[in-house]
Amino acid sequence: MDGSGLLALSSERQMQVDAVLARFFSLAKNRAAPLGPQYVQLWETLENNTIGGKRFRPRMVMCAYQALGGTDLEAAAYVGAAFELLHTALIVHDDVIDNDFMRRGVPNISGSYRNAAIAAGSNNRVAEHSGISAAVIAGDLALFNSYRLIDRSGVADVTRARLLEVMDDALFASAAGELIDVEFSMRPEVPRVDDILAMERLKTAVYSFECPLQAGAILAGASEDVVQTLANFGREIGISYQLVDDLLGVFGHEAETGKTTIGDLREGKRTVMIAYATSTPEWDQVKNLIGDPDLTETDAQFVRDLLVSCGAKTFTEGLARYYGNRALARLAEPHIPGALRDELHPVVDAVLGRVK
Amino acid sequence: MDGSGLLALSSERQMQVDAVLARFFSLAKNRAAPLGPQYVQLWETLENNTIGGKRFRPRMVMCAYQALGGTDLEAAAYVGAAFELLHTALIVHDDVIDNDFMRRGVPNISGSYRNAAIAAGSNNRVAEHSGISAAVIAGDLALFNSYRLIDRSGVADVTRARLLEVMDDALFASAAGELIDVEFSMRPEVPRVDDILAMERLKTAVYSFECPLQAGAILAGASEDVVQTLANFGREIGISYQLVDDLLGVFGHEAETGKTTIGDLREGKRTVMIAYATSTPEWDQVKNLIGDPDLTETDAQFVRDLLVSCGAKTFTEGLARYYGNRALARLAEPHIPGALRDELHPVVDAVLGRVK
Repeated sequence: MDGSGLLALSSERQMQVDAVLARFFSLAKNRAAPLGPQYVQLWETLENNTIGGKRFRPRMVMCAYQALGGTDLEAAAYVGAAFELLHTALIVHDDVIDNDFMRRGVPNISGSYRNAAIAAGSNNRVAEHSGISAAVIAGDLALFNSYRLIDRSGVADVTRARLLEVMDDALFASAAGELIDVEFSMRPEVPRVDDILAMERLKTAVYSFECPLQAGAILAGASEDVVQTLANFGREIGISYQLVDDLLGVFGHEAETGKTTIGDLREGKRTVMIAYATSTPEWDQVKNLIGDPDLTETDAQFVRDLLVSCGAKTFTEGLARYYGNRALARLAEPHIPGALRDELHPVVDAVLGRVK
Repeated sequence: MDGSGLLALSSERQMQVDAVLARFFSLAKNRAAPLGPQYVQLWETLENNTIGGKRFRPRMVMCAYQALGGTDLEAAAYVGAAFELLHTALIVHDDVIDNDFMRRGVPNISGSYRNAAIAAGSNNRVAEHSGISAAVIAGDLALFNSYRLIDRSGVADVTRARLLEVMDDALFASAAGELIDVEFSMRPEVPRVDDILAMERLKTAVYSFECPLQAGAILAGASEDVVQTLANFGREIGISYQLVDDLLGVFGHEAETGKTTIGDLREGKRTVMIAYATSTPEWDQVKNLIGDPDLTETDAQFVRDLLVSCGAKTFTEGLARYYGNRALARLAEPHIPGALRDELHPVVDAVLGRVK
C-alpha cells in the first residue's frame, strides 16, 4: 500500500542532490567551528534532519528540468537541494508549532536536544526549552539557506531572479497554510472538506509540487505555457498526494510508511476523510474518540472500521483518484513534450499506487 | 541617562526606510488577501512589530553609505529596511525561545495572538499555542523577506551578491549567539565575563552594527580597507552598546528606555555586570535573589545597591567606555574620510551618553 519509493529520486540524481547538500553542510560546519563546538553540533543535527529523506521535491525539479532538455545537472541539483532545505525548515518549525519532539518515530531536532539535556541532568521543562530553542534556530538557518542555495546555483541572473520568486511563492503559501491549519486545530468543529483541501494545498502542495516543478521548467528555459501547466499539474498531484498521505496516516502500514496509524487519530488531525465522516450519521459514534490523546488500539480499530463503513475512506480514495486524473489531464495538454509526460506519468502512478 | 534618541535615524532617512517598509507590507497584504483575512492580519501584526522602532540598523547602513559618497538613497533605504526586517525576525523568534509574550511593556506577536484567543474564549494553553504559532510563522516570513529586500534593492548583481554575503554573515553569527545564550541560561553557574562578551557580540553586535555598516560601505563602493575598518568599528561600538543596554536593564529609567529595571534581575539574565559581581565577596548576599521570578522591588533595590558597592556597575561602565574608545580609534584610521568620522562620532557619543 505504500510505494512511496517510486517517488524517490533515481540513484544518480539523488547522488547529485546529496553531494550539493553534503558540500553545503561541510562548508557550514567549517564556518561554525570557530564559533564553538555547540554550533557545529547544531549544524550536524540539522544535517541529520535533512539527509535520508525521499528527496521527492528535488525529484520534481530534476525530472522537469531534464525532460525539458536541461543539461546542467549541477545547477538543477542546487535548486533541488534548495527545496529540500526549505522542506526541512518548514517541518522543523512545524514541529515547534505542534510541540512535537518526534517525527516518524525518531527524535527530531527538539527531541535530540531535549534528550541530551535530560541525559545531562536537566529537568523536563528546561530540557524541552533547550530542544525548542535549538529547533527555532536550526529552522531559521535552513530557511535562510534554502534561499542561499538558489543564489549559489550559478545560474544566470535573470533565471536566478525568477527562481527566487518561485521560492518566495513557496514560503508565502506555506506560511498561509500553516496559519490556517493552526486556526483549524483551535476550532471545536471540524472544518468543511473544501476548506481542508485549500489549507492542505497551501501548506504542502505548493512548496512540494507546484513550485519545484515550476523551478525545474524555468531552469530549463521552458515556455510560459509549459511552466504554467506544470504548476497546474503540481497543484492536482500535490492535493492527491496529501489525500493519500492522510489515508495512510490511519490505514497505512507502519513498517512501510514509518508513521503510526494511531497518531493522527489521537491528535484529532483535521483531514478530508474526517471532515467527510462528520457529515454522516455514523459520526456520533466516534466523535468523542477522535482527538482523544489516550485512544487505545481497540478504539482506533473501531474508528477505522467506522471510517470504512460510513464511506469516508472510499470517498477520500475517490477524491485522490479524481485529483490524480486531473493531473494526468494536464500532462495530455498538447504543448507538453512526450519526454516530460513520460517522466511525470509514473509520479501519478506512484501517488495513486499508494492506496491501491 | 538614555539618549537613545540620538541613535535614531534623521527624519528624512527615517521616512525613506519607512516608505520601503510600508510598500513592502502593502504588497504583502495585497498578496495575502486571496488566502484569507487571517493571513492579512498576520502581516498587519508583523508590520506593527516592525514599524515604530528606532531604526538604528538602517541608520548604520545609511550613514556609512552617504558619508562614503553614495547617492542612491532609495537603494540604501532598501538595504536598511532589510536589516530592520532581519531584526524583527530575530526578536520575534527570540521571544518564542524565551516564551515571552511581551516586549518593552506591550504584547509582542505571541502576546497579541494569545490575547485575541483568550478574548475569543480559548483557555490559556490553547491561546499560548496560537500565539507561539503565529510568532514562528511571522518570524519566518520576516527572515525570508529580509533577504528578498536586498534582492529587490535594484543594485547591480555584483554588489547584490556581496550584500547577500553580509546578510548571511549576520544571520550566521546571530544564530550562534542565540544558541550560546540558551546554553548559558541552562547552566547553574554564571559564565565568565569574556564568554558573555563573545556571546553578546555574536547575538546582537554583528547583525546590528558590523553588518549594516559593512553593507552601507559596500553599497557605496568603498575600498576593502574602509569596509573592514567599519566592520571593526561596528564590533567595538556594538559591544559597547550591549554593555550599556545591560546597565540600563537594571539602572535605567523605565520612562526613557521602555524597559522595566526588574525584569532582567528576575530572569537572572547573564550579563557582564552580573558575571563581574560573581567574582566579588559581596556575591553571596545576592546570589539567591538574582533569577528569583518573585523578586520584590525592595530586594531589587538591595541588588542594585550591591552591584554598585561591589564595583560591578563601575566596571561595566568602564568597559563600555573602553569599547567606545576603541571604536573612536578605528575612526581615526587614516583611510577613514572626514565625512564618515563626522557621521559616526555622534553614534559613539550617543551610546556612551546613555550611561553618563
